[in-house]
Amino acid sequence: MLQGSDFVGWRAVQQDRVEAALDAWVSADAPAGLGLAMRYAVLDGGKRLRPLLVLATREAVGGEERAAMRAACAVELIHAYSLVHDDMPCMDNDVLRRGKPTVHVKFGEAQALLAGDALQALAFGLLVPGDGSVSAELSVRLCRQLALAAGASGMAGGQAVDLASVGIALDRPALEAMHRLKTGALLQASVMMGAATGSADESVSHALSVYGASLGLAFQVVDDILDVTTDSATLGKTAGKDAACDKPTFVSLMGLDGAQAYADQCLDSAHEALASSGLPQVDTLHALADWVGHRVS
Amino acid sequence: MLQGSDFVGWRAVQQDRVEAALDAWVSADAPAGLGLAMRYAVLDGGKRLRPLLVLATREAVGGEERAAMRAACAVELIHAYSLVHDDMPCMDNDVLRRGKPTVHVKFGEAQALLAGDALQALAFGLLVPGDGSVSAELSVRLCRQLALAAGASGMAGGQAVDLASVGIALDRPALEAMHRLKTGALLQASVMMGAATGSADESVSHALSVYGASLGLAFQVVDDILDVTTDSATLGKTAGKDAACDKPTFVSLMGLDGAQAYADQCLDSAHEALASSGLPQVDTLHALADWVGHRVS
Repeated sequence: MLQGSDFVGWRAVQQDRVEAALDAWVSADAPAGLGLAMRYAVLDGGKRLRPLLVLATREAVGGEERAAMRAACAVELIHAYSLVHDDMPCMDNDVLRRGKPTVHVKFGEAQALLAGDALQALAFGLLVPGDGSVSAELSVRLCRQLALAAGASGMAGGQAVDLASVGIALDRPALEAMHRLKTGALLQASVMMGAATGSADESVSHALSVYGASLGLAFQVVDDILDVTTDSATLGKTAGKDAACDKPTFVSLMGLDGAQAYADQCLDSAHEALASSGLPQVDTLHALADWVGHRVS
Repeated sequence: MLQGSDFVGWRAVQQDRVEAALDAWVSADAPAGLGLAMRYAVLDGGKRLRPLLVLATREAVGGEERAAMRAACAVELIHAYSLVHDDMPCMDNDVLRRGKPTVHVKFGEAQALLAGDALQALAFGLLVPGDGSVSAELSVRLCRQLALAAGASGMAGGQAVDLASVGIALDRPALEAMHRLKTGALLQASVMMGAATGSADESVSHALSVYGASLGLAFQVVDDILDVTTDSATLGKTAGKDAACDKPTFVSLMGLDGAQAYADQCLDSAHEALASSGLPQVDTLHALADWVGHRVS
Protein backbone atom coordinates (compact mmCIF):
# COMPACT_ATOMS: atom_id res chain seq x y z
CA MET A 1 0.00 0.00 0.00
CA LEU A 2 1.02 3.55 -0.69
CA GLN A 3 2.38 5.17 2.45
CA GLY A 4 0.17 7.97 3.76
CA SER A 5 2.74 10.67 3.13
CA ASP A 6 3.40 9.40 -0.39
CA PHE A 7 -0.29 9.65 -1.21
CA VAL A 8 -0.56 13.13 0.28
CA GLY A 9 2.36 14.19 -1.88
CA TRP A 10 0.94 12.56 -5.03
CA ARG A 11 -2.44 14.16 -4.37
CA ALA A 12 -0.98 17.62 -3.94
CA VAL A 13 1.05 17.35 -7.13
CA GLN A 14 -1.91 16.12 -9.17
CA GLN A 15 -4.27 18.69 -7.68
CA ASP A 16 -1.84 21.40 -8.77
CA ARG A 17 -1.60 19.93 -12.26
CA VAL A 18 -5.39 19.78 -12.55
CA GLU A 19 -5.72 23.34 -11.27
CA ALA A 20 -3.19 24.57 -13.84
CA ALA A 21 -4.93 22.72 -16.66
CA LEU A 22 -8.35 24.06 -15.67
CA ASP A 23 -6.86 27.53 -15.36
CA ALA A 24 -5.60 27.26 -18.94
CA TRP A 25 -8.71 25.69 -20.42
CA VAL A 26 -11.45 27.70 -18.72
CA SER A 27 -10.82 31.05 -20.34
CA ALA A 28 -11.75 34.40 -18.86
CA ASP A 29 -12.30 35.64 -22.41
CA ALA A 30 -15.91 34.50 -22.75
CA PRO A 31 -18.00 37.63 -23.24
CA ALA A 32 -20.00 39.72 -20.81
CA GLY A 33 -18.53 38.25 -17.67
CA LEU A 34 -19.46 34.67 -18.58
CA GLY A 35 -15.82 33.59 -18.49
CA LEU A 36 -15.41 35.04 -15.02
CA ALA A 37 -18.46 33.19 -13.74
CA MET A 38 -17.20 29.94 -15.29
CA ARG A 39 -13.77 30.35 -13.71
CA TYR A 40 -15.31 31.23 -10.36
CA ALA A 41 -17.32 28.01 -10.52
CA VAL A 42 -14.33 25.86 -11.35
CA LEU A 43 -11.05 27.23 -10.03
CA ASP A 44 -9.59 27.29 -6.58
CA GLY A 45 -11.84 24.84 -4.90
CA GLY A 46 -12.86 21.30 -4.33
CA LYS A 47 -11.02 18.12 -3.61
CA ARG A 48 -10.72 17.26 -7.32
CA LEU A 49 -11.71 13.72 -6.44
CA ARG A 50 -12.97 12.94 -9.93
CA PRO A 51 -9.85 14.17 -11.73
CA LEU A 52 -7.71 12.27 -9.22
CA LEU A 53 -9.64 9.09 -9.98
CA VAL A 54 -9.05 9.57 -13.71
CA LEU A 55 -5.35 10.23 -13.24
CA ALA A 56 -4.77 7.42 -10.74
CA THR A 57 -6.57 4.93 -12.96
CA ARG A 58 -4.52 6.07 -15.94
CA GLU A 59 -1.39 5.37 -13.89
CA ALA A 60 -2.69 1.94 -12.96
CA VAL A 61 -3.35 0.96 -16.58
CA GLY A 62 -0.39 2.82 -18.10
CA GLY A 63 -2.66 4.98 -20.28
CA GLU A 64 -2.18 8.13 -22.34
CA GLU A 65 -1.20 11.07 -20.15
CA ARG A 66 -2.49 13.94 -22.25
CA ALA A 67 -5.83 12.30 -22.88
CA ALA A 68 -6.14 11.55 -19.16
CA MET A 69 -5.63 15.19 -18.17
CA ARG A 70 -8.32 16.26 -20.64
CA ALA A 71 -10.65 13.57 -19.30
CA ALA A 72 -9.84 14.60 -15.73
CA CYS A 73 -10.75 18.21 -16.44
CA ALA A 74 -13.82 17.26 -18.45
CA VAL A 75 -15.34 15.27 -15.57
CA GLU A 76 -14.49 18.10 -13.18
CA LEU A 77 -16.26 20.61 -15.45
CA ILE A 78 -19.35 18.41 -15.50
CA HIS A 79 -19.20 18.17 -11.72
CA ALA A 80 -18.69 21.93 -11.39
CA TYR A 81 -21.59 22.78 -13.69
CA SER A 82 -23.85 20.39 -11.79
CA LEU A 83 -23.02 22.16 -8.53
CA VAL A 84 -23.76 25.57 -10.07
CA HIS A 85 -27.17 24.45 -11.29
CA ASP A 86 -27.87 22.40 -8.16
CA ASP A 87 -27.26 25.41 -5.93
CA MET A 88 -29.73 27.62 -7.80
CA PRO A 89 -32.90 28.77 -6.01
CA CYS A 90 -35.15 26.50 -8.08
CA MET A 91 -33.08 23.49 -6.98
CA ASP A 92 -31.35 23.37 -3.58
CA ASN A 93 -31.20 27.14 -3.12
CA ASP A 94 -27.80 27.08 -1.50
CA VAL A 95 -25.72 30.17 -0.87
CA LEU A 96 -22.44 28.62 0.25
CA ARG A 97 -20.14 26.28 -1.69
CA ARG A 98 -16.51 25.51 -1.02
CA GLY A 99 -16.61 28.26 1.59
CA LYS A 100 -17.60 30.93 -0.94
CA PRO A 101 -20.89 32.44 -2.08
CA THR A 102 -22.44 30.23 -4.75
CA VAL A 103 -22.23 31.33 -8.38
CA HIS A 104 -25.77 32.66 -8.59
CA VAL A 105 -25.29 34.67 -5.41
CA LYS A 106 -22.13 36.19 -6.84
CA PHE A 107 -23.11 36.64 -10.51
CA GLY A 108 -26.91 36.39 -10.61
CA GLU A 109 -29.13 33.49 -11.54
CA ALA A 110 -29.13 34.00 -15.29
CA GLN A 111 -25.34 34.13 -15.49
CA ALA A 112 -25.11 31.05 -13.26
CA LEU A 113 -27.46 29.16 -15.55
CA LEU A 114 -25.40 30.13 -18.61
CA ALA A 115 -22.08 29.43 -16.90
CA GLY A 116 -23.26 25.92 -16.08
CA ASP A 117 -24.45 25.39 -19.64
CA ALA A 118 -21.18 26.65 -21.10
CA LEU A 119 -19.14 24.48 -18.73
CA GLN A 120 -20.94 21.39 -19.96
CA ALA A 121 -20.20 22.28 -23.60
CA LEU A 122 -16.57 22.95 -22.68
CA ALA A 123 -16.31 19.56 -20.99
CA PHE A 124 -17.13 17.80 -24.25
CA GLY A 125 -14.97 20.24 -26.18
CA LEU A 126 -11.94 19.30 -24.08
CA LEU A 127 -12.29 15.69 -25.18
CA VAL A 128 -12.07 16.48 -28.90
CA PRO A 129 -8.98 18.65 -29.28
CA GLY A 130 -7.88 19.62 -32.76
CA ASP A 131 -4.20 19.27 -31.91
CA GLY A 132 -3.84 15.53 -32.37
CA SER A 133 -3.14 14.98 -28.67
CA VAL A 134 -5.95 12.42 -28.36
CA SER A 135 -6.71 9.76 -30.98
CA ALA A 136 -10.15 9.94 -32.58
CA GLU A 137 -11.06 6.50 -31.24
CA LEU A 138 -10.17 7.50 -27.69
CA SER A 139 -11.96 10.85 -27.98
CA VAL A 140 -15.10 9.04 -29.03
CA ARG A 141 -14.87 6.52 -26.18
CA LEU A 142 -14.38 9.30 -23.64
CA CYS A 143 -17.23 11.41 -25.03
CA ARG A 144 -19.54 8.44 -24.97
CA GLN A 145 -18.70 7.62 -21.35
CA LEU A 146 -19.11 11.24 -20.29
CA ALA A 147 -22.40 11.75 -22.14
CA LEU A 148 -23.86 8.64 -20.53
CA ALA A 149 -22.65 9.53 -17.04
CA ALA A 150 -23.80 13.15 -17.22
CA GLY A 151 -27.15 12.72 -18.91
CA ALA A 152 -30.63 11.40 -18.27
CA SER A 153 -29.49 7.88 -17.46
CA GLY A 154 -26.75 9.21 -15.19
CA MET A 155 -26.26 12.33 -13.12
CA ALA A 156 -29.17 14.41 -14.46
CA GLY A 157 -31.49 11.44 -14.05
CA GLY A 158 -30.32 10.99 -10.47
CA GLN A 159 -30.98 14.62 -9.72
CA ALA A 160 -34.51 14.22 -11.05
CA VAL A 161 -35.06 11.24 -8.73
CA ASP A 162 -33.59 13.27 -5.89
CA LEU A 163 -36.03 16.11 -6.56
CA ALA A 164 -38.93 13.70 -6.63
CA SER A 165 -37.86 12.03 -3.38
CA VAL A 166 -38.28 14.98 -1.02
CA GLY A 167 -40.57 13.89 1.78
CA ILE A 168 -40.83 10.36 0.35
CA ALA A 169 -39.83 7.30 2.37
CA LEU A 170 -37.25 5.66 0.09
CA ASP A 171 -35.93 2.30 1.21
CA ARG A 172 -32.23 1.52 0.95
CA PRO A 173 -32.35 -0.03 -2.53
CA ALA A 174 -34.21 3.01 -3.86
CA LEU A 175 -31.84 5.41 -2.10
CA GLU A 176 -28.86 3.56 -3.52
CA ALA A 177 -30.35 3.53 -6.99
CA MET A 178 -30.78 7.29 -6.80
CA HIS A 179 -27.20 7.88 -5.68
CA ARG A 180 -25.82 5.42 -8.21
CA LEU A 181 -27.09 7.87 -10.79
CA LYS A 182 -26.72 11.22 -9.05
CA THR A 183 -23.14 10.99 -7.83
CA GLY A 184 -22.11 7.42 -8.58
CA ALA A 185 -22.32 7.61 -12.37
CA LEU A 186 -19.76 10.39 -12.70
CA LEU A 187 -17.40 8.92 -10.09
CA GLN A 188 -17.54 5.55 -11.80
CA ALA A 189 -17.08 7.23 -15.19
CA SER A 190 -13.99 8.96 -13.84
CA VAL A 191 -12.45 5.58 -13.15
CA MET A 192 -13.60 4.13 -16.46
CA MET A 193 -12.41 7.12 -18.48
CA GLY A 194 -9.02 6.73 -16.84
CA ALA A 195 -9.13 3.06 -17.79
CA ALA A 196 -10.08 3.94 -21.38
CA THR A 197 -6.85 5.90 -21.82
CA GLY A 198 -4.98 2.59 -21.62
CA SER A 199 -5.75 -0.94 -22.66
CA ALA A 200 -7.67 -2.66 -19.89
CA ASP A 201 -9.05 -6.08 -20.82
CA GLU A 202 -12.55 -7.11 -19.88
CA SER A 203 -11.77 -8.55 -16.46
CA VAL A 204 -9.69 -5.53 -15.49
CA SER A 205 -12.44 -3.21 -16.72
CA HIS A 206 -14.99 -5.11 -14.70
CA ALA A 207 -12.87 -4.92 -11.55
CA LEU A 208 -12.33 -1.19 -12.02
CA SER A 209 -16.00 -0.69 -12.65
CA VAL A 210 -16.87 -2.40 -9.35
CA TYR A 211 -14.18 -0.33 -7.64
CA GLY A 212 -15.72 2.88 -9.05
CA ALA A 213 -19.25 1.89 -8.09
CA SER A 214 -18.26 0.89 -4.54
CA LEU A 215 -16.21 4.04 -4.05
CA GLY A 216 -19.10 6.10 -5.39
CA LEU A 217 -21.50 4.58 -2.87
CA ALA A 218 -19.01 5.02 -0.01
CA PHE A 219 -18.60 8.64 -1.04
CA GLN A 220 -22.33 9.27 -0.74
CA VAL A 221 -22.75 7.43 2.57
CA VAL A 222 -19.89 9.46 4.05
CA ASP A 223 -21.44 12.61 2.58
CA ASP A 224 -24.64 11.87 4.47
CA ILE A 225 -22.66 11.23 7.68
CA LEU A 226 -20.73 14.49 7.34
CA ASP A 227 -23.95 16.38 6.66
CA VAL A 228 -25.08 15.64 10.23
CA THR A 229 -21.75 15.47 12.08
CA THR A 230 -19.86 18.44 10.67
CA ASP A 231 -20.47 22.18 10.69
CA SER A 232 -20.88 24.37 7.62
CA ALA A 233 -17.51 26.08 8.08
CA THR A 234 -15.67 22.76 7.89
CA LEU A 235 -17.78 21.44 5.02
CA GLY A 236 -17.57 24.68 3.07
CA LYS A 237 -21.24 24.21 2.29
CA THR A 238 -24.44 24.35 4.28
CA ALA A 239 -24.54 21.47 6.76
CA GLY A 240 -27.74 19.75 7.84
CA LYS A 241 -29.47 20.48 4.54
CA ASP A 242 -30.81 16.99 3.94
CA ALA A 243 -32.66 16.75 7.24
CA ALA A 244 -33.91 20.32 6.85
CA CYS A 245 -35.26 19.43 3.39
CA ASP A 246 -36.74 16.17 4.63
CA LYS A 247 -34.60 14.22 2.17
CA PRO A 248 -33.94 10.54 2.79
CA THR A 249 -30.29 9.77 3.61
CA PHE A 250 -28.28 6.75 4.66
CA VAL A 251 -28.16 8.23 8.17
CA SER A 252 -31.91 8.71 8.36
CA LEU A 253 -32.38 5.12 7.14
CA MET A 254 -29.64 3.33 9.09
CA GLY A 255 -28.61 5.64 11.92
CA LEU A 256 -25.09 7.05 12.29
CA ASP A 257 -23.45 3.81 13.39
CA GLY A 258 -25.23 1.81 10.73
CA ALA A 259 -24.21 4.29 8.06
CA GLN A 260 -20.59 4.21 9.20
CA ALA A 261 -20.56 0.42 9.11
CA TYR A 262 -22.08 0.52 5.64
CA ALA A 263 -19.48 3.02 4.43
CA ASP A 264 -16.75 0.68 5.68
CA GLN A 265 -18.40 -2.22 3.89
CA CYS A 266 -18.46 -0.25 0.60
CA LEU A 267 -14.79 0.62 1.05
CA ASP A 268 -13.98 -3.04 1.63
CA SER A 269 -15.72 -3.86 -1.65
CA ALA A 270 -13.67 -1.21 -3.43
CA HIS A 271 -10.41 -2.58 -2.06
CA GLU A 272 -11.38 -6.15 -2.90
CA ALA A 273 -12.27 -5.22 -6.47
CA LEU A 274 -8.89 -3.56 -6.90
CA ALA A 275 -7.09 -6.56 -5.50
CA SER A 276 -8.99 -8.80 -7.91
CA SER A 277 -8.03 -6.66 -10.91
CA GLY A 278 -4.58 -8.16 -11.10
CA LEU A 279 -3.18 -4.71 -11.94
CA PRO A 280 0.29 -4.31 -10.39
CA GLN A 281 0.12 -0.62 -9.47
CA VAL A 282 -3.09 0.15 -7.64
CA ASP A 283 -1.69 1.68 -4.45
CA THR A 284 -2.93 5.16 -5.34
CA LEU A 285 -6.41 3.86 -6.11
CA HIS A 286 -6.47 2.07 -2.72
CA ALA A 287 -5.38 5.29 -1.05
CA LEU A 288 -8.05 7.29 -2.89
CA ALA A 289 -10.73 4.94 -1.57
CA ASP A 290 -9.44 5.39 1.99
CA TRP A 291 -9.34 9.14 1.49
CA VAL A 292 -12.98 9.11 0.37
CA GLY A 293 -13.93 6.97 3.33
CA HIS A 294 -12.11 8.93 6.00
CA ARG A 295 -12.39 12.48 4.79
CA VAL A 296 -13.70 15.14 7.17
CA SER A 297 -15.25 17.50 4.62
CA MET B 1 -33.74 26.72 -58.41
CA LEU B 2 -35.91 24.24 -56.61
CA GLN B 3 -39.57 24.78 -57.44
CA GLY B 4 -41.58 25.98 -54.45
CA SER B 5 -43.72 22.86 -54.28
CA ASP B 6 -40.64 20.61 -54.51
CA PHE B 7 -39.09 22.37 -51.54
CA VAL B 8 -42.29 22.18 -49.53
CA GLY B 9 -42.39 18.45 -50.22
CA TRP B 10 -38.71 17.96 -49.37
CA ARG B 11 -39.14 19.94 -46.17
CA ALA B 12 -42.16 17.94 -45.05
CA VAL B 13 -40.40 14.63 -45.67
CA GLN B 14 -37.27 15.70 -43.82
CA GLN B 15 -39.22 17.21 -40.94
CA ASP B 16 -41.00 13.87 -40.53
CA ARG B 17 -37.69 11.99 -40.61
CA VAL B 18 -36.21 14.32 -37.98
CA GLU B 19 -39.30 13.99 -35.81
CA ALA B 20 -39.11 10.20 -35.99
CA ALA B 21 -35.40 10.20 -35.14
CA LEU B 22 -35.90 12.55 -32.18
CA ASP B 23 -38.83 10.44 -31.04
CA ALA B 24 -36.57 7.38 -31.02
CA TRP B 25 -33.54 9.03 -29.42
CA VAL B 26 -35.17 11.15 -26.72
CA SER B 27 -36.43 8.39 -24.50
CA ALA B 28 -39.31 8.65 -22.10
CA ASP B 29 -37.47 6.21 -19.85
CA ALA B 30 -35.38 8.78 -17.97
CA PRO B 31 -36.42 8.58 -14.33
CA ALA B 32 -38.83 10.68 -12.28
CA GLY B 33 -40.51 12.34 -15.22
CA LEU B 34 -37.27 13.74 -16.64
CA GLY B 35 -37.77 11.86 -19.90
CA LEU B 36 -41.25 13.29 -20.28
CA ALA B 37 -39.98 16.82 -19.76
CA MET B 38 -37.21 16.25 -22.30
CA ARG B 39 -39.63 14.91 -24.88
CA TYR B 40 -42.05 17.76 -24.25
CA ALA B 41 -39.22 20.20 -24.91
CA VAL B 42 -38.18 18.55 -28.15
CA LEU B 43 -41.02 16.76 -29.91
CA ASP B 44 -43.91 18.03 -31.94
CA GLY B 45 -42.79 21.55 -32.48
CA GLY B 46 -40.55 23.95 -34.24
CA LYS B 47 -39.58 24.47 -37.84
CA ARG B 48 -36.54 22.18 -37.48
CA LEU B 49 -34.54 24.78 -39.39
CA ARG B 50 -31.21 23.62 -37.97
CA PRO B 51 -31.74 19.94 -38.81
CA LEU B 52 -32.92 20.92 -42.28
CA LEU B 53 -29.72 22.91 -42.79
CA VAL B 54 -27.63 19.91 -41.77
CA LEU B 55 -29.55 17.56 -44.06
CA ALA B 56 -29.63 19.91 -47.05
CA THR B 57 -25.90 20.59 -46.75
CA ARG B 58 -25.24 16.86 -46.56
CA GLU B 59 -27.17 16.44 -49.79
CA ALA B 60 -25.18 19.23 -51.41
CA VAL B 61 -21.83 17.65 -50.53
CA GLY B 62 -22.91 14.01 -50.90
CA GLY B 63 -22.10 13.23 -47.26
CA GLU B 64 -22.86 10.35 -44.91
CA GLU B 65 -26.60 10.03 -44.32
CA ARG B 66 -26.60 8.36 -40.91
CA ALA B 67 -24.06 10.76 -39.48
CA ALA B 68 -26.05 13.68 -40.86
CA MET B 69 -29.25 12.58 -39.15
CA ARG B 70 -27.39 12.29 -35.83
CA ALA B 71 -25.85 15.72 -36.36
CA ALA B 72 -29.25 17.14 -37.33
CA CYS B 73 -30.82 15.87 -34.13
CA ALA B 74 -27.84 16.91 -32.01
CA VAL B 75 -28.08 20.55 -33.11
CA GLU B 76 -31.83 20.47 -32.57
CA LEU B 77 -31.34 19.16 -29.02
CA ILE B 78 -28.89 21.99 -28.30
CA HIS B 79 -31.42 24.45 -29.70
CA ALA B 80 -34.24 22.88 -27.68
CA TYR B 81 -32.29 22.92 -24.43
CA SER B 82 -31.35 26.57 -24.98
CA LEU B 83 -35.02 27.47 -25.38
CA VAL B 84 -35.93 25.62 -22.18
CA HIS B 85 -33.30 27.47 -20.17
CA ASP B 86 -33.91 30.78 -21.96
CA ASP B 87 -37.61 30.66 -21.08
CA MET B 88 -36.96 30.19 -17.36
CA PRO B 89 -37.96 32.96 -14.94
CA CYS B 90 -34.36 33.96 -14.25
CA MET B 91 -33.80 34.51 -17.98
CA ASP B 92 -36.64 35.65 -20.28
CA ASN B 93 -39.44 34.39 -18.05
CA ASP B 94 -41.60 33.26 -20.93
CA VAL B 95 -44.70 31.13 -20.53
CA LEU B 96 -45.49 30.33 -24.17
CA ARG B 97 -43.36 28.49 -26.72
CA ARG B 98 -44.47 26.86 -29.94
CA GLY B 99 -48.02 27.57 -28.84
CA LYS B 100 -47.68 25.52 -25.66
CA PRO B 101 -46.83 26.31 -22.02
CA THR B 102 -43.05 26.44 -21.61
CA VAL B 103 -41.31 23.50 -19.96
CA HIS B 104 -40.91 25.15 -16.56
CA VAL B 105 -44.59 26.13 -16.53
CA LYS B 106 -45.57 22.55 -17.31
CA PHE B 107 -42.99 20.63 -15.24
CA GLY B 108 -41.58 23.11 -12.72
CA GLU B 109 -38.34 25.08 -12.81
CA ALA B 110 -36.08 22.41 -11.35
CA GLN B 111 -37.22 19.78 -13.83
CA ALA B 112 -36.84 22.28 -16.69
CA LEU B 113 -33.29 23.04 -15.61
CA LEU B 114 -32.45 19.33 -15.50
CA ALA B 115 -34.22 18.56 -18.77
CA GLY B 116 -32.13 21.22 -20.50
CA ASP B 117 -28.95 19.87 -18.95
CA ALA B 118 -29.79 16.32 -19.95
CA LEU B 119 -30.66 17.37 -23.51
CA GLN B 120 -27.24 18.94 -23.90
CA ALA B 121 -25.54 15.73 -22.74
CA LEU B 122 -27.74 13.72 -25.10
CA ALA B 123 -26.79 15.97 -28.01
CA PHE B 124 -23.13 15.06 -27.62
CA GLY B 125 -24.04 11.45 -26.95
CA LEU B 126 -25.85 11.22 -30.29
CA LEU B 127 -22.63 12.12 -32.09
CA VAL B 128 -20.64 9.23 -30.61
CA PRO B 129 -22.76 6.12 -31.21
CA GLY B 130 -21.32 2.76 -30.30
CA ASP B 131 -22.84 1.07 -33.34
CA GLY B 132 -20.20 1.98 -35.91
CA SER B 133 -22.63 4.17 -37.86
CA VAL B 134 -20.29 7.19 -37.67
CA SER B 135 -16.52 6.98 -38.11
CA ALA B 136 -14.46 8.09 -35.13
CA GLU B 137 -12.86 10.90 -37.14
CA LEU B 138 -16.24 12.26 -38.18
CA SER B 139 -17.66 11.93 -34.65
CA VAL B 140 -14.78 13.99 -33.34
CA ARG B 141 -15.19 16.69 -36.00
CA LEU B 142 -18.90 16.95 -35.29
CA CYS B 143 -18.41 17.07 -31.50
CA ARG B 144 -15.80 19.77 -31.86
CA GLN B 145 -18.04 21.91 -34.06
CA LEU B 146 -21.01 21.46 -31.73
CA ALA B 147 -19.03 22.19 -28.56
CA LEU B 148 -17.67 25.39 -30.05
CA ALA B 149 -21.03 26.55 -31.36
CA ALA B 150 -22.91 25.78 -28.14
CA GLY B 151 -20.41 27.01 -25.59
CA ALA B 152 -18.92 30.20 -24.22
CA SER B 153 -17.54 31.35 -27.57
CA GLY B 154 -20.83 30.55 -29.29
CA MET B 155 -24.44 30.37 -28.20
CA ALA B 156 -23.96 30.58 -24.42
CA GLY B 157 -21.58 33.51 -24.87
CA GLY B 158 -24.12 35.29 -27.05
CA GLN B 159 -26.80 34.78 -24.43
CA ALA B 160 -24.51 36.35 -21.85
CA VAL B 161 -24.03 39.39 -24.11
CA ASP B 162 -27.78 39.51 -24.66
CA LEU B 163 -28.39 39.53 -20.89
CA ALA B 164 -25.88 42.31 -20.43
CA SER B 165 -27.38 44.40 -23.24
CA VAL B 166 -30.79 45.06 -21.73
CA GLY B 167 -31.31 48.82 -21.68
CA ILE B 168 -27.95 49.41 -23.39
CA ALA B 169 -27.68 51.27 -26.70
CA LEU B 170 -25.84 48.72 -28.87
CA ASP B 171 -24.84 49.93 -32.33
CA ARG B 172 -25.31 47.66 -35.32
CA PRO B 173 -21.87 46.04 -35.23
CA ALA B 174 -22.33 45.20 -31.55
CA LEU B 175 -25.84 43.89 -32.14
CA GLU B 176 -24.59 41.74 -35.01
CA ALA B 177 -21.69 40.45 -32.95
CA MET B 178 -24.14 39.39 -30.24
CA HIS B 179 -26.42 37.59 -32.68
CA ARG B 180 -23.51 35.98 -34.51
CA LEU B 181 -22.91 34.16 -31.24
CA LYS B 182 -26.40 33.78 -29.82
CA THR B 183 -28.22 32.35 -32.82
CA GLY B 184 -25.70 32.57 -35.64
CA ALA B 185 -23.13 30.15 -34.25
CA LEU B 186 -25.52 27.20 -34.10
CA LEU B 187 -27.11 27.95 -37.48
CA GLN B 188 -23.69 28.22 -39.09
CA ALA B 189 -22.56 25.05 -37.28
CA SER B 190 -25.61 23.26 -38.70
CA VAL B 191 -24.36 24.02 -42.20
CA MET B 192 -20.76 23.16 -41.37
CA MET B 193 -21.68 19.91 -39.61
CA GLY B 194 -23.64 18.94 -42.71
CA ALA B 195 -20.55 19.80 -44.76
CA ALA B 196 -18.34 17.73 -42.45
CA THR B 197 -20.31 14.58 -43.28
CA GLY B 198 -18.88 14.78 -46.80
CA SER B 199 -15.64 15.97 -48.28
CA ALA B 200 -15.84 19.69 -48.91
CA ASP B 201 -12.54 21.31 -49.90
CA GLU B 202 -11.43 24.59 -48.41
CA SER B 203 -13.11 26.88 -50.92
CA VAL B 204 -16.40 25.00 -50.68
CA SER B 205 -16.19 25.08 -46.88
CA HIS B 206 -15.56 28.80 -46.97
CA ALA B 207 -18.53 29.41 -49.26
CA LEU B 208 -20.81 27.30 -47.06
CA SER B 209 -19.54 29.06 -43.99
CA VAL B 210 -20.44 32.46 -45.49
CA TYR B 211 -23.81 31.04 -46.50
CA GLY B 212 -24.42 29.88 -42.92
CA ALA B 213 -23.36 33.16 -41.40
CA SER B 214 -25.48 35.24 -43.81
CA LEU B 215 -28.50 33.02 -43.32
CA GLY B 216 -28.01 33.22 -39.56
CA LEU B 217 -28.01 36.99 -39.63
CA ALA B 218 -31.04 37.09 -41.94
CA PHE B 219 -32.82 34.75 -39.54
CA GLN B 220 -32.30 37.12 -36.63
CA VAL B 221 -33.25 40.29 -38.53
CA VAL B 222 -36.48 38.60 -39.62
CA ASP B 223 -37.03 37.43 -36.05
CA ASP B 224 -36.85 41.03 -34.88
CA ILE B 225 -39.26 42.09 -37.62
CA LEU B 226 -41.74 39.35 -36.73
CA ASP B 227 -41.52 40.27 -33.06
CA VAL B 228 -43.17 43.62 -33.82
CA THR B 229 -45.37 42.73 -36.82
CA THR B 230 -46.90 39.43 -35.75
CA ASP B 231 -49.17 38.40 -32.90
CA SER B 232 -48.33 35.80 -30.24
CA ALA B 233 -50.82 33.26 -31.61
CA THR B 234 -49.11 33.23 -35.01
CA LEU B 235 -45.61 33.20 -33.54
CA GLY B 236 -46.42 30.54 -30.96
CA LYS B 237 -44.42 32.59 -28.50
CA THR B 238 -44.90 35.92 -26.79
CA ALA B 239 -44.71 38.73 -29.36
CA GLY B 240 -43.36 42.18 -28.56
CA LYS B 241 -40.99 40.86 -25.90
CA ASP B 242 -37.90 42.69 -27.08
CA ALA B 243 -39.45 46.14 -26.95
CA ALA B 244 -41.10 45.31 -23.62
CA CYS B 245 -37.71 44.28 -22.23
CA ASP B 246 -35.98 47.30 -23.71
CA LYS B 247 -33.68 45.05 -25.73
CA PRO B 248 -31.92 46.47 -28.78
CA THR B 249 -33.13 44.93 -32.07
CA PHE B 250 -32.52 45.49 -35.76
CA VAL B 251 -35.94 47.13 -35.93
CA SER B 252 -35.21 49.51 -33.07
CA LEU B 253 -31.90 50.42 -34.73
CA MET B 254 -32.94 50.60 -38.38
CA GLY B 255 -36.72 50.90 -38.44
CA LEU B 256 -39.00 48.31 -40.06
CA ASP B 257 -38.17 49.21 -43.65
CA GLY B 258 -34.46 49.40 -42.94
CA ALA B 259 -34.54 46.03 -41.21
CA GLN B 260 -36.43 44.45 -44.12
CA ALA B 261 -33.91 45.85 -46.59
CA TYR B 262 -31.10 44.52 -44.45
CA ALA B 263 -32.67 41.07 -44.24
CA ASP B 264 -32.88 41.03 -48.04
CA GLN B 265 -29.25 42.04 -48.27
CA CYS B 266 -28.23 39.18 -45.95
CA LEU B 267 -30.25 36.74 -48.06
CA ASP B 268 -28.53 38.01 -51.20
CA SER B 269 -25.18 37.32 -49.54
CA ALA B 270 -26.32 33.80 -48.69
CA HIS B 271 -27.39 33.13 -52.27
CA GLU B 272 -24.18 34.58 -53.68
CA ALA B 273 -22.04 32.46 -51.38
CA LEU B 274 -23.88 29.35 -52.51
CA ALA B 275 -23.46 30.27 -56.15
CA SER B 276 -19.74 30.78 -55.58
CA SER B 277 -19.36 27.37 -53.94
CA GLY B 278 -19.32 25.59 -57.27
CA LEU B 279 -21.43 22.80 -55.74
CA PRO B 280 -23.84 21.41 -58.34
CA GLN B 281 -26.82 20.69 -56.08
CA VAL B 282 -27.59 23.66 -53.90
CA ASP B 283 -31.23 24.25 -54.81
CA THR B 284 -32.48 23.13 -51.42
CA LEU B 285 -30.02 25.39 -49.60
CA HIS B 286 -31.18 28.33 -51.77
CA ALA B 287 -34.77 27.46 -50.93
CA LEU B 288 -33.97 27.22 -47.20
CA ALA B 289 -32.53 30.72 -47.26
CA ASP B 290 -35.67 32.05 -48.92
CA TRP B 291 -37.80 30.20 -46.39
CA VAL B 292 -35.88 31.84 -43.55
CA GLY B 293 -36.25 35.23 -45.18
CA HIS B 294 -39.93 35.02 -45.96
CA ARG B 295 -41.32 33.05 -43.09
CA VAL B 296 -44.28 34.41 -41.14
CA SER B 297 -43.55 32.85 -37.75
